[in-house]
Amino acid sequence: MVIETKAAIDLGASLAQALRYVNAWKSKTVVVKYGGSIMDGQVDESTVIDDLVLLKGAGVDPVLVHGGGPEITRTLDRLGKPSRFVDGLRVTDAETMEVVEMVLAGRANKALVSSIAAAGGTAVGISGKDGNVFRARPLAAAEDLGHVGEVETVDTRLVQLLSGSGYIPVIASIGIGADGGSYNLNADHAAGALAAAVGASKFILLTDVPGVFGDGDDPGSLISVLRADDAARLIADRVISRGMIPKVESCLAALAAGVPTAHIISGRIPHALLVELFTEEGVGTMLVP
Amino acid sequence: MVIETKAAIDLGASLAQALRYVNAWKSKTVVVKYGGSIMDGQVDESTVIDDLVLLKGAGVDPVLVHGGGPEITRTLDRLGKPSRFVDGLRVTDAETMEVVEMVLAGRANKALVSSIAAAGGTAVGISGKDGNVFRARPLAAAEDLGHVGEVETVDTRLVQLLSGSGYIPVIASIGIGADGGSYNLNADHAAGALAAAVGASKFILLTDVPGVFGDGDDPGSLISVLRADDAARLIADRVISRGMIPKVESCLAALAAGVPTAHIISGRIPHALLVELFTEEGVGTMLVP
Amino acid sequence: MVIETKAAIDLGASLAQALRYVNAWKSKTVVVKYGGSIMDGQVDESTVIDDLVLLKGAGVDPVLVHGGGPEITRTLDRLGKPSRFVDGLRVTDAETMEVVEMVLAGRANKALVSSIAAAGGTAVGISGKDGNVFRARPLAAAEDLGHVGEVETVDTRLVQLLSGSGYIPVIASIGIGADGGSYNLNADHAAGALAAAVGASKFILLTDVPGVFGDGDDPGSLISVLRADDAARLIADRVISRGMIPKVESCLAALAAGVPTAHIISGRIPHALLVELFTEEGVGTMLVP
Amino acid sequence: MVIETKAAIDLGASLAQALRYVNAWKSKTVVVKYGGSIMDGQVDESTVIDDLVLLKGAGVDPVLVHGGGPEITRTLDRLGKPSRFVDGLRVTDAETMEVVEMVLAGRANKALVSSIAAAGGTAVGISGKDGNVFRARPLAAAEDLGHVGEVETVDTRLVQLLSGSGYIPVIASIGIGADGGSYNLNADHAAGALAAAVGASKFILLTDVPGVFGDGDDPGSLISVLRADDAARLIADRVISRGMIPKVESCLAALAAGVPTAHIISGRIPHALLVELFTEEGVGTMLVP
Amino acid sequence: MVIETKAAIDLGASLAQALRYVNAWKSKTVVVKYGGSIMDGQVDESTVIDDLVLLKGAGVDPVLVHGGGPEITRTLDRLGKPSRFVDGLRVTDAETMEVVEMVLAGRANKALVSSIAAAGGTAVGISGKDGNVFRARPLAAAEDLGHVGEVETVDTRLVQLLSGSGYIPVIASIGIGADGGSYNLNADHAAGALAAAVGASKFILLTDVPGVFGDGDDPGSLISVLRADDAARLIADRVISRGMIPKVESCLAALAAGVPTAHIISGRIPHALLVELFTEEGVGTMLVP
Amino acid sequence: MVIETKAAIDLGASLAQALRYVNAWKSKTVVVKYGGSIMDGQVDESTVIDDLVLLKGAGVDPVLVHGGGPEITRTLDRLGKPSRFVDGLRVTDAETMEVVEMVLAGRANKALVSSIAAAGGTAVGISGKDGNVFRARPLAAAEDLGHVGEVETVDTRLVQLLSGSGYIPVIASIGIGADGGSYNLNADHAAGALAAAVGASKFILLTDVPGVFGDGDDPGSLISVLRADDAARLIADRVISRGMIPKVESCLAALAAGVPTAHIISGRIPHALLVELFTEEGVGTMLVP
Repeated sequence: MVIETKAAIDLGASLAQALRYVNAWKSKTVVVKYGGSIMDGQVDESTVIDDLVLLKGAGVDPVLVHGGGPEITRTLDRLGKPSRFVDGLRVTDAETMEVVEMVLAGRANKALVSSIAAAGGTAVGISGKDGNVFRARPLAAAEDLGHVGEVETVDTRLVQLLSGSGYIPVIASIGIGADGGSYNLNADHAAGALAAAVGASKFILLTDVPGVFGDGDDPGSLISVLRADDAARLIADRVISRGMIPKVESCLAALAAGVPTAHIISGRIPHALLVELFTEEGVGTMLVP
Repeated sequence: MVIETKAAIDLGASLAQALRYVNAWKSKTVVVKYGGSIMDGQVDESTVIDDLVLLKGAGVDPVLVHGGGPEITRTLDRLGKPSRFVDGLRVTDAETMEVVEMVLAGRANKALVSSIAAAGGTAVGISGKDGNVFRARPLAAAEDLGHVGEVETVDTRLVQLLSGSGYIPVIASIGIGADGGSYNLNADHAAGALAAAVGASKFILLTDVPGVFGDGDDPGSLISVLRADDAARLIADRVISRGMIPKVESCLAALAAGVPTAHIISGRIPHALLVELFTEEGVGTMLVP
Repeated sequence: MVIETKAAIDLGASLAQALRYVNAWKSKTVVVKYGGSIMDGQVDESTVIDDLVLLKGAGVDPVLVHGGGPEITRTLDRLGKPSRFVDGLRVTDAETMEVVEMVLAGRANKALVSSIAAAGGTAVGISGKDGNVFRARPLAAAEDLGHVGEVETVDTRLVQLLSGSGYIPVIASIGIGADGGSYNLNADHAAGALAAAVGASKFILLTDVPGVFGDGDDPGSLISVLRADDAARLIADRVISRGMIPKVESCLAALAAGVPTAHIISGRIPHALLVELFTEEGVGTMLVP
Repeated sequence: MVIETKAAIDLGASLAQALRYVNAWKSKTVVVKYGGSIMDGQVDESTVIDDLVLLKGAGVDPVLVHGGGPEITRTLDRLGKPSRFVDGLRVTDAETMEVVEMVLAGRANKALVSSIAAAGGTAVGISGKDGNVFRARPLAAAEDLGHVGEVETVDTRLVQLLSGSGYIPVIASIGIGADGGSYNLNADHAAGALAAAVGASKFILLTDVPGVFGDGDDPGSLISVLRADDAARLIADRVISRGMIPKVESCLAALAAGVPTAHIISGRIPHALLVELFTEEGVGTMLVP
Repeated sequence: MVIETKAAIDLGASLAQALRYVNAWKSKTVVVKYGGSIMDGQVDESTVIDDLVLLKGAGVDPVLVHGGGPEITRTLDRLGKPSRFVDGLRVTDAETMEVVEMVLAGRANKALVSSIAAAGGTAVGISGKDGNVFRARPLAAAEDLGHVGEVETVDTRLVQLLSGSGYIPVIASIGIGADGGSYNLNADHAAGALAAAVGASKFILLTDVPGVFGDGDDPGSLISVLRADDAARLIADRVISRGMIPKVESCLAALAAGVPTAHIISGRIPHALLVELFTEEGVGTMLVP
Repeated sequence: MVIETKAAIDLGASLAQALRYVNAWKSKTVVVKYGGSIMDGQVDESTVIDDLVLLKGAGVDPVLVHGGGPEITRTLDRLGKPSRFVDGLRVTDAETMEVVEMVLAGRANKALVSSIAAAGGTAVGISGKDGNVFRARPLAAAEDLGHVGEVETVDTRLVQLLSGSGYIPVIASIGIGADGGSYNLNADHAAGALAAAVGASKFILLTDVPGVFGDGDDPGSLISVLRADDAARLIADRVISRGMIPKVESCLAALAAGVPTAHIISGRIPHALLVELFTEEGVGTMLVP
């Protein structure tokens, strides 16, 4: 059976539009940060992973950076190791660091590799220690936070090698010190630094809220487009609250380094990644310089 | 304004589907025959041209072959040169050949190049004489038909050079003899021969009817999928009539040379090319081996 | 039978000299403008075409640009369309432009492709619209001349692609507007602009007179070498007359853009092209900066 | 101060000899299996890692495959998950597999990457799931062993990409099923299969005993060179005991697939890797076809 | 002053003809043997050298092989070392070999390099020992001839490297033994072996006689074309005499290995090399399979 | 028999150290000047040649430059041609130049090629005339010295072509004049000029004394490290005497052109080349900027 003409015409128009988007994004690198509860069994991850595989197939180059907060706490609990936080940062002694690394690089990372394989793609899961992707140093802080680190330099060669050879790089947010030691990095910041270093065309933070709100938790106050200086002001005015701060900060860092746009969107909306990439309006908050 | 969630979900699903199609067709060559009344000012050509440009942008490699029947007759008329046909073939003396070549290579061909430029693509319009694309010889026939020819060999190098360098090749159905002389080729046959020679993944005949009918002119009798041996039988049984014969024959020749599928579709349906390429069902008749 | 020794010695000397020339011109681009009555059946074109094929074979890269004046007028006459000229420029309405394009790109261009094939070479005939070789705009003039255009930019990529792949590019002097429309270009000017843009080593105008005369039509007054500033003065002093002006101007433009020498020679002298390229003295007028 | 002549002469002779070895092994791939107690904090690992870095620097291409037995048991214990073994194989339910993968890919693997970085090299730590290096299926066994798997196919592309780009690949012995799931592989077998698939020039099993003994645990009975059929007979005769069986079997598999020699040596001897590669005699047992 | 028209026409015709020859020989390798008295100051060598440089410049790849007989004898005489011959072969003890090598590789070879430089080309003079071009072994003979050798294998890599990098290779007919020792090779044989090994399009022996005579020394009996089996018969019938035998034999060896034609011509005729390459008739004897 | 453990440990340490050296020198060019009595049968040359072959095999790129003084004098004597010197420079008339070139390029050069072949390497022996490596002019001097020359320019292309293709270039110190004539170059100076031109990482002068002495011929006064300005002062103060002057001068020239270190060492010490390259202390005098 052929398609009925009216349906064919509608389908044709939508195909034409999709092709326009594909043409615009071909051979461009998109760094996607993925994490928190959406990655944690609470939300069906399948369309995010499907979207990554579809984008790769269409010639876009996605790079995935992830953290893995709740699972780390659960595993520390099971091992009878209490978690302590200072200013929202996990105090990370040597034993905690071992657990963090095991969970991020051995569990969350490899679960994503499996999901991508199941969706028809081929991933290579690494941590930021491999190939010295994230060289790190201890985070400057009032109190000794142990192995909590910050990105010092980014070596993009391994990521580009993998991306250019047909693989989807999946990177756990762990850094390597000058002595080969491990550092626990904020995944939002690490992803933003990578987006800047590889010259990404877009930096997308997939989270479990719809975007930046102008008024508390009111979904009706979602800000569609946010200029960098306005974002800085909203942080200063405490309109942007705790958990959203590192996300917005990493977007600002990416913008400052020349990434054209950064996006904070909800991973709960099916194919949100495609809609954000392939429409004018998008579904979350787009930050622009 | 962001997209309303329900709309975003629908759009996401359709984007995901479109990307699956794009992935399947990337770096494949599709030979498209375009001609007759749809090319002749009677039908808005714009979506065909748009589709070619979109396909090229998405990584598919379209090659366009065209004839230009009605315009040739009109120009001969204006020059006071009567047209004579034998078995549907235009008797082509030297002077007629000059006019045929002028109209095909100088008018129809360059009009298509302009349309592609206007749609944002870059075409290179040639005839089958350039680069010896179509080496031709006189068509074996009961009566001397002059410069009416048939394809002897196809040299695909120029077409592949242009295709591989980002251009859309647009080829007028004229052949070159051993002495450099010109031959008037049936555009359907020439296009089918090219599809076979370049190892096209699809051969698409854009025409002004919806496809092959099983019963006269009854649109309800449109055959969606037609196997090669059934097609041969329908010709023998005269179910497939005059003008459709060279179209079906050129499809059969392409299939016999290894082209996986050949399609006869209507250029009157907007984006018919995309729908035929990017759906299971399609909108016309698909011939299979 | 071997060659008699005396003859062998003479032949050897001439072979040695020819090789010296070949070495000097290898891998250099030579833009040749060909047109007017020598292209129009009044003069045997064969040695010009032979020369192009021989040069290509020997490693020189000739590019041919052509117009086609007399044939255009004849075809317009046959179609009952009167020709009107303003300051020597054909007023070109839309209908006239269609005929101009048909004759240049569909007739003159393809006749040259045939001749080159007959001489053993392989040409690709295009117009300046293909691959956006000649981007054009309306010629600034006191009166509206319709589709009469002038070259705005030259995109040399297609020409270099064809030249570098073993083909002789043959280019009809038609330009493409921003909207994909056609413009009628002066072939001398277009050829000069192309010579400048591709960085040609020589620009050769093949015409039907021996070169620039210092005194009216007196062949004895042929100027062998003409410096650019002297040429400008001769135009100002009206020593260089009407038809020769665009030729000299296009030579001056090529020289100004860095082409080392430009030549105006007669296509009536057999192998004039070879003699001009391969001797110190040459047969026509050489313009130098 | 210059070197005293006698010392210079001795040093010169030893340098000359070392260069001969380097020349012989340049651009050759050596697959090294590393594991058990020598990797487990009980033995100083530094010379093994140093040796890998020195070999890489000298143009040899080492690839490291590792397991991590004792650490897995310790972590399972801490998580209150008892270990059960059938015929020496750990019964691996889904929850156990998660822990195995965490420890191998997140802890042992990344500890090796750190050590290589500290020694001046650059490693990329992956598991056999990444890039589908080890496609696996459930191990055929009398009892359901859960996620215990065996290698089905080896995809060497990622390993060769990393090796050829200056990195030392470090691979955890985990496989990926057709559905993306994880399998617990015997590291000796996985390493042998990789050595065979990449066409390694040598397969080296670093363990904590000196090699294969001909008589129980008597170090004096160390077999220096062991032919494949003799090895098979020693297994049949139970001279080769439990823990040594998979080691010898994986050596035999590598030999059968064309790897010229396989070696079982002690990681406790400093620079054993260099001595085994760079001398005739070596320090352990060399298996030959 | 321009060229007078009649002269221009003649010149044009001869230029056209020369270009046809150049086209036919482009990128082909021609092995030229040069030696004996024509190289020895008795005949002006300049046109041979000029011809090589002209050919190289025109895209032909000449390779020069040379001996140096008379100069060797003169130098041995000056050093008080008598020359002894057995069957026309110089008995070559170690001391004689040193002198042979000095004269061939240090004098004749470098004199040719200088001449080529003076003519505008760039040569690289080597002996057959360099890059193992001619691996040699002692010539099997009734009597011990010392260092007289024959070609065992030809390693064409160095010759092709030099030829492909713009240099004219000039090779002294000395071979290298398995132990690095030197062998005195017959230059005719060595050149023929090289022509065969590099897949030359022509093998040319430049000598001081016009070619092969059918009747003693009668120049009127010069054989223009000689088939291989006829040549073999003429040797058997002793029509081809002493000095000509190795020349004809090396031609036959080259033909047997697939070189299309071999030529014996006189270096005394100016530009004989060009005339032989670039005319049907040639000036000497052409051997064909 | 395996190696006894204690011996294995010592061997391992020394292998590890050697690999560190190899890594540091890989892909670097080392220009070695070799000559005088050590090359002249008085000293066993074998370890120098072995060292060159070992270095090449390990990925270092040695280039050998040589003279050949004593042999030249001996050959001139045998030919009854007296040697005359002015300020230590051999007055070189045309006939002398022929002998110099024969001996250097035909004897010393080819003997080195043979030695390298016997040691398992592959050399290409050229003179500085080949490929115009050393363009030379007459040495400016008070008296006409004939063909004594100095380096004008160095063309490194041939040397790099050979080096990069796996060959060891061996270069006789002869230069080529603008007219193709030969010049007798000081080998120390020529080697230093080449080291500077190719951007060598080290320039090593192999001679028959241990290095630069601070006090006459007292071996105890060997200067281990010598700064460039100190060296210049020692020449001015006549502490550095006659034969050592050109050696030190050529080292200073190489240093001035950016070569990091230059070395004067004794070829009499076995493997002196390896020891100098692969140890901190070395065995002779190292000159530094």
